[in-house]
Amino acid sequence: MIIVLKKDATEEQIQHILEKTTKLGLKPNISRGVERTVIGLIGPEDVLRVTPLDVFPGVENVIPVLAPYRLVSREFRKENTVIKIKDGVEIGDNKVLVIAGPCSIESKELTLSVAKKVKAAGAKVLRGGAFKPRTSPYDFQGLGEEGLKYLKEAGEQLNMATITEVMDVRDLELICKYTDILQIGARNMQNFTLLKEIGKLHKPVMLKRGISATIKEWLMSAEYILSNGNFNVMLCERGIRTYETATRNTLDINAIPLVKQLSHLPVVVDPSHATGVWNLVSPAAKAAVAAGCDGLMIEVHDNPEEALSDGTQSLLPYKFGVLMQEIKQIAKVIGRDT
Amino acid sequence: MIIVLKKDATEEQIQHILEKTTKLGLKPNISRGVERTVIGLIGPEDVLRVTPLDVFPGVENVIPVLAPYRLVSREFRKENTVIKIKDGVEIGDNKVLVIAGPCSIESKELTLSVAKKVKAAGAKVLRGGAFKPRTSPYDFQGLGEEGLKYLKEAGEQLNMATITEVMDVRDLELICKYTDILQIGARNMQNFTLLKEIGKLHKPVMLKRGISATIKEWLMSAEYILSNGNFNVMLCERGIRTYETATRNTLDINAIPLVKQLSHLPVVVDPSHATGVWNLVSPAAKAAVAAGCDGLMIEVHDNPEEALSDGTQSLLPYKFGVLMQEIKQIAKVIGRDT
Amino acid sequence: MIIVLKKDATEEQIQHILEKTTKLGLKPNISRGVERTVIGLIGPEDVLRVTPLDVFPGVENVIPVLAPYRLVSREFRKENTVIKIKDGVEIGDNKVLVIAGPCSIESKELTLSVAKKVKAAGAKVLRGGAFKPRTSPYDFQGLGEEGLKYLKEAGEQLNMATITEVMDVRDLELICKYTDILQIGARNMQNFTLLKEIGKLHKPVMLKRGISATIKEWLMSAEYILSNGNFNVMLCERGIRTYETATRNTLDINAIPLVKQLSHLPVVVDPSHATGVWNLVSPAAKAAVAAGCDGLMIEVHDNPEEALSDGTQSLLPYKFGVLMQEIKQIAKVIGRDT
Amino acid sequence: MIIVLKKDATEEQIQHILEKTTKLGLKPNISRGVERTVIGLIGPEDVLRVTPLDVFPGVENVIPVLAPYRLVSREFRKENTVIKIKDGVEIGDNKVLVIAGPCSIESKELTLSVAKKVKAAGAKVLRGGAFKPRTSPYDFQGLGEEGLKYLKEAGEQLNMATITEVMDVRDLELICKYTDILQIGARNMQNFTLLKEIGKLHKPVMLKRGISATIKEWLMSAEYILSNGNFNVMLCERGIRTYETATRNTLDINAIPLVKQLSHLPVVVDPSHATGVWNLVSPAAKAAVAAGCDGLMIEVHDNPEEALSDGTQSLLPYKFGVLMQEIKQIAKVIGRDT
Repeated sequence: MIIVLKKDATEEQIQHILEKTTKLGLKPNISRGVERTVIGLIGPEDVLRVTPLDVFPGVENVIPVLAPYRLVSREFRKENTVIKIKDGVEIGDNKVLVIAGPCSIESKELTLSVAKKVKAAGAKVLRGGAFKPRTSPYDFQGLGEEGLKYLKEAGEQLNMATITEVMDVRDLELICKYTDILQIGARNMQNFTLLKEIGKLHKPVMLKRGISATIKEWLMSAEYILSNGNFNVMLCERGIRTYETATRNTLDINAIPLVKQLSHLPVVVDPSHATGVWNLVSPAAKAAVAAGCDGLMIEVHDNPEEALSDGTQSLLPYKFGVLMQEIKQIAKVIGRDT
Repeated sequence: MIIVLKKDATEEQIQHILEKTTKLGLKPNISRGVERTVIGLIGPEDVLRVTPLDVFPGVENVIPVLAPYRLVSREFRKENTVIKIKDGVEIGDNKVLVIAGPCSIESKELTLSVAKKVKAAGAKVLRGGAFKPRTSPYDFQGLGEEGLKYLKEAGEQLNMATITEVMDVRDLELICKYTDILQIGARNMQNFTLLKEIGKLHKPVMLKRGISATIKEWLMSAEYILSNGNFNVMLCERGIRTYETATRNTLDINAIPLVKQLSHLPVVVDPSHATGVWNLVSPAAKAAVAAGCDGLMIEVHDNPEEALSDGTQSLLPYKFGVLMQEIKQIAKVIGRDT
Repeated sequence: MIIVLKKDATEEQIQHILEKTTKLGLKPNISRGVERTVIGLIGPEDVLRVTPLDVFPGVENVIPVLAPYRLVSREFRKENTVIKIKDGVEIGDNKVLVIAGPCSIESKELTLSVAKKVKAAGAKVLRGGAFKPRTSPYDFQGLGEEGLKYLKEAGEQLNMATITEVMDVRDLELICKYTDILQIGARNMQNFTLLKEIGKLHKPVMLKRGISATIKEWLMSAEYILSNGNFNVMLCERGIRTYETATRNTLDINAIPLVKQLSHLPVVVDPSHATGVWNLVSPAAKAAVAAGCDGLMIEVHDNPEEALSDGTQSLLPYKFGVLMQEIKQIAKVIGRDT
Repeated sequence: MIIVLKKDATEEQIQHILEKTTKLGLKPNISRGVERTVIGLIGPEDVLRVTPLDVFPGVENVIPVLAPYRLVSREFRKENTVIKIKDGVEIGDNKVLVIAGPCSIESKELTLSVAKKVKAAGAKVLRGGAFKPRTSPYDFQGLGEEGLKYLKEAGEQLNMATITEVMDVRDLELICKYTDILQIGARNMQNFTLLKEIGKLHKPVMLKRGISATIKEWLMSAEYILSNGNFNVMLCERGIRTYETATRNTLDINAIPLVKQLSHLPVVVDPSHATGVWNLVSPAAKAAVAAGCDGLMIEVHDNPEEALSDGTQSLLPYKFGVLMQEIKQIAKVIGRDT
């Protein structure tokens, strides 16, 4: 790391910093310019996190040189991580994996009906929420275990993998019995308790980016999971919060190629939440594939007018089918498959 | 609520909406203007959350008229909520309550030493983290139960109330044994599992605003706690995330008077996190009192250079003492006390 | 528009509002619900802008029903606006138009050299800045008229249309002599003086979105130009400012299909500024085409290491060539051409 | 500045960087750590702006060490800048200067009437817009020169200084004849043409912060004015744009003490625009004084219901009077006067 000193830093202050950093096991390298003296420190940057060098007298600024994450980084692993989810279902390879289904599991019939249609169109993973994080305590909170059963049944009947969200660390065992992929929602991206417990499992996990999480924080949350032993992590960009309110969220399309450069983990995009309106979902999904994502997660509902949650952003099955055709072709243009 | 129709909405579409809303128990009131037809709906707006009227054909926009929260609103309760924390320690009345202490509980000695100094300067509640939410899995995660013991001991010895953060719903019982106020951190503002469980207790709670939570979402999270039975909720503004990176967060000073207008709950401000640098903490704290907050929470450390967390933003005890003198006088100017 | 009254609004306050609005030429329509009384107003919403109804006693909220823009809206004109720039060069039709060239015009040689390469790859418009808006007064400010000459020469020699930025209303006449399209930069999106003057011309204009402009504000700025008589306006999304600093800006990909729904004007995307790093430009450009943009503007430089501005985000000509091939194919997938 | 190399940077790449930087007149200082090689460069950082070192092969990151502004910095001038506006009216000294008046100059009578009341309450500068920057082309655009005359007359009659906004560089001469302070609005903070021209005058200037300008960009815009010769610049914080829409803008209260540390220029706060609602103006104004601002600018109107602009955020004269009393006392608490 690098310490930039104030213009008027005294020799005494400089000595204090040199002594302190040497004691911490770092090798300081002082460079006296005309306008500023700068101290470069060779050694483990981790000490920065336990010693606030920026409060030392005479210090103007402390600049870390290394990224704070390790296991998730491309430096740690050069090749793309490929996660095997189920027979014939993987993510991170040359194919773009599509996850689809209703926002919430509302009934056995709806789940199966939507599942059949998205499967026919080419989706390989079925989504559906049984425990729903709702802004209002008065809203539909999900069917719980009953919903998990419907999801599992539909998955087995159609030979699809399944994904559902975990909100409570106490539900983890239950949910693991029923689904193939655990979803950590945007609101829980920094629920470190949950991250640690999921890190101890070997289940595939989809970690959604927090609504205002930086890419660095998102990767640090993934690092929590990997550092506890679970390397089967896919990241999901689902739109971020900005000043613009014309759409529910702002899809950070730049994040897709950037995260692929920084990390070996697969990147999924959720155009349903990232836009919030059904008639923007298709253009956003196509854009995401063109930008290089490894997977998509899309909300589909037989009758959005009657949906118990997120009806506004759900696609009708036939529109989903049209989209799948286009995605297939865009994937080919950039040398991928579906 | 109000439904604005598209300019080219057909009669058939209008009839479909009128039938549907009537079936939902609402009384529609149609008004045909030159440029737009508008349908006003009299009746419970809650149906909006289960029926996405905005996906009905011909609908341009659906506008709710009521705020989505009830129990936390000034309409529900005109008078300020006053929370009794301990003998002689309350918040929400005419006095500005000051909470102070180290970021993390690092040792028995430090805790007691800082506690004595902040108590002498006028703080009535002692803060200190035993379970720390850290962005990096490699950072100091807190002393756990050992830390809780030190906090409790210091509180008892000096007759101060205590506050500490809860991150894991499974720790709730343990933490309740040791402290007077439960703190829900910014990252857990929408950890609905935690909100519901804390809602079932009668302990005073301090609910921090999420780093990018709107005021409405913050109040909705409080509504989760109140609707489960616990009305002893104080809100804490701790800075929001904006595009500006010159400070750790942006203190949303407007939120103080606005939340006091919208809600009867007490509002605390945390200038330490809201600025992130010790030399901005005092001006921000004075501004918060001038703007009408009911309480302050400030990080104080004997030796910030050695602090295990947040050293950068911790005040030295003597600076905290000076600040307390100024706060006392500003409180008087606006007709309050400390 | 709709006026929502406070729960405790008095009859006297209601009468005051009814009288005032009637006097303003509006027809009020009162609807008394259990929780709120609402007044719908039929008539021109423009009065809202000269009468602040929200300060009237008893008023909780005033909600406009109509969008504030007219001439730029899809309602005003259903078909896409097609702008003829030069023989064989238009935007807004089925083809995706590509604008490319160096950030700044640095010399006659560079301009011509880059122009030849981007032309060969398929670009039809040559870009280059002669007057540069720089954050620092100490940075390269552009070659001025000399630069305009080089741009014009290269354009004529290669039969390309040209575009350059106008910063000063006093330069307008000069710039019009040399170029085919006027660019209004992000920083000048609300330079109303400039908008009005350009509105009086018939030159094609590219209006960049301000760095934190909402889509509504962006369209209102276009409305300034159209309402002064110039309908040859294309809009340019160039990334917005968010809390994320890992990229220079955040490309708002959702804005492309949304603006195409709201307005008949063509939409161009500038992936160079929207990402700020050359190795993100190609994925972002492909995403923009997949999302339905009508044009792209891309910075290309023979030797980015020596560029006087924006070297970091400039593509090498051969990379631009590869990108053009992919764009052509993606355009075809969504039924367009290049 | 500091260049951080990629982990796999080759010797050849390193040599290329060393040669290039040496040629630019910098003295490179290489430091080879275990994880990264870092090159510190001693010499003028200005070369960074003309040479994009971050595109050199092998470079991961380039980190500037110095702030990009000079003349506006505390380093350049240790003492506070005090600007003499008129006999007995200055800003930057120990007194908090208050500027007040209507948003727009609507008539001779209103201007004089409001002026008398704000003068009586303690304001020393009269504000009023004659050229108004309006988001909509259909809104009231100001009275122009007629308005300037009314402002000047009121100022002379009451011995108050005056301030008005300049939008068009061509109006500069005209406006200078009529007013004492030139206001550069938020939308024009990076209208570099205007900044340069105003820099050539000696008139006091108030430079408003752009709606999403960083503190660094704001100071750079001030640097444009100072570097052209005009040192009579006061900065005005007027709220920034964030994701929160419950208030018109978010007052960045942290910016006040931070800018006072970074720069010697006086800082004014505009609580009217920073909140957007009259009933938040007083708390915000008191907070700003408590945080250490040098001045306030507040919109006051005799009859906000009839105001032609910004009625929603204008204070009635008697409320302004009450506020002035509180401000006076808060100023005293922090050792200042009014």
